[in-house]
Amino acid sequence: MTASEFTSRLDAQVAFLKEADRLKSILRATPLIDGSRKENSAEHSWHVMLYALVLADQAGPEVRIDRVIRMLLLHDIVEIDAGDHPIHGNVDHAAQEAAEAAAADRLFGLLPDDQRDGFRALWDEFEAAETPDAVFAKAIDRFQSPVTNLAGNGLGWRGYDVTLEKLDARVGRPISRGAPGLWAWLRPKLAAFLGQPG
Amino acid sequence: MTASEFTSRLDAQVAFLKEADRLKSILRATPLIDGSRKENSAEHSWHVMLYALVLADQAGPEVRIDRVIRMLLLHDIVEIDAGDHPIHGNVDHAAQEAAEAAAADRLFGLLPDDQRDGFRALWDEFEAAETPDAVFAKAIDRFQSPVTNLAGNGLGWRGYDVTLEKLDARVGRPISRGAPGLWAWLRPKLAAFLGQPG
Repeated sequence: MTASEFTSRLDAQVAFLKEADRLKSILRATPLIDGSRKENSAEHSWHVMLYALVLADQAGPEVRIDRVIRMLLLHDIVEIDAGDHPIHGNVDHAAQEAAEAAAADRLFGLLPDDQRDGFRALWDEFEAAETPDAVFAKAIDRFQSPVTNLAGNGLGWRGYDVTLEKLDARVGRPISRGAPGLWAWLRPKLAAFLGQPG
Repeated sequence: MTASEFTSRLDAQVAFLKEADRLKSILRATPLIDGSRKENSAEHSWHVMLYALVLADQAGPEVRIDRVIRMLLLHDIVEIDAGDHPIHGNVDHAAQEAAEAAAADRLFGLLPDDQRDGFRALWDEFEAAETPDAVFAKAIDRFQSPVTNLAGNGLGWRGYDVTLEKLDARVGRPISRGAPGLWAWLRPKLAAFLGQPG
């Protein structure tokens, strides 16, 4: 690589990293546990990576936890352009998928071509939720919010019509697919909190 | 493992993960690039992990980038008890080290013993900054703030007496030790911004 190619590569990498700063201003529906404010998608990404590392023993033997962590590092970057869509809100899924794909084109497109393609492949794998790594990453991503909401006395659920039936479908299904032990642990706590027979 | 041991282990892991939520309320001296507010240590941790992944080609061949990412995932958790200390502020380093060691005892001590010991070893390695992985992790951790401060027109440096000489010592030394290409790229930009001969 010539000095000029080296500089161009680094210029592109830093341009992407500076643009990524904006993920810190994308707010999610879930508040912090202390209720002081809403969580943003950058700190959420850090937290779910920590969940993945700590809860790695809940994954099947074929899961490579460092790949899971890389997926979770990248998984929400598209929200810089496409926004966050609360799991208990009503969303036009096709429009949302199109917006996220366009966001991935633009944002990963800031990087040098080799990294653009590698990051996009990892993000596509996460979104498809078919490989063991992606299935576990999705389970972890879904597990953090209900744990936070329980710890915060359900503050993050107010304004949404949250029932055990809905949690079973939107949260329980992806968690039990990738980390059945986590769902077995969580579901009775959700049932007790919501006052519904588990 | 019996069902009861399994549940105790998961209870301890989730207790740690909930406590970690508090890192989102630890504020750093550096503002977001858009100047809207100060950065917190959880979103900073996410951002430096992204820096490490994107800038992995700046590391020496012996650096294992997934270990670097794990170090950066954990590196600031002690600030929940010990607080953040701005690099350009004046700090009693011995008192700060003692506070951080006590914080590591308490916070990693929430985890099951095997994870407590593994996480502590990784954090100690980062702090010691002797292994190639730790030296690169420290370089990346130091690189993000000046990039952010330049992009934000120096907002994060106001109130501190920042000179090129101080940046050479506090930022340049750790960056050039772990990632000399990054310092060669950054230093002329810092000199130009500060209006000092580089």
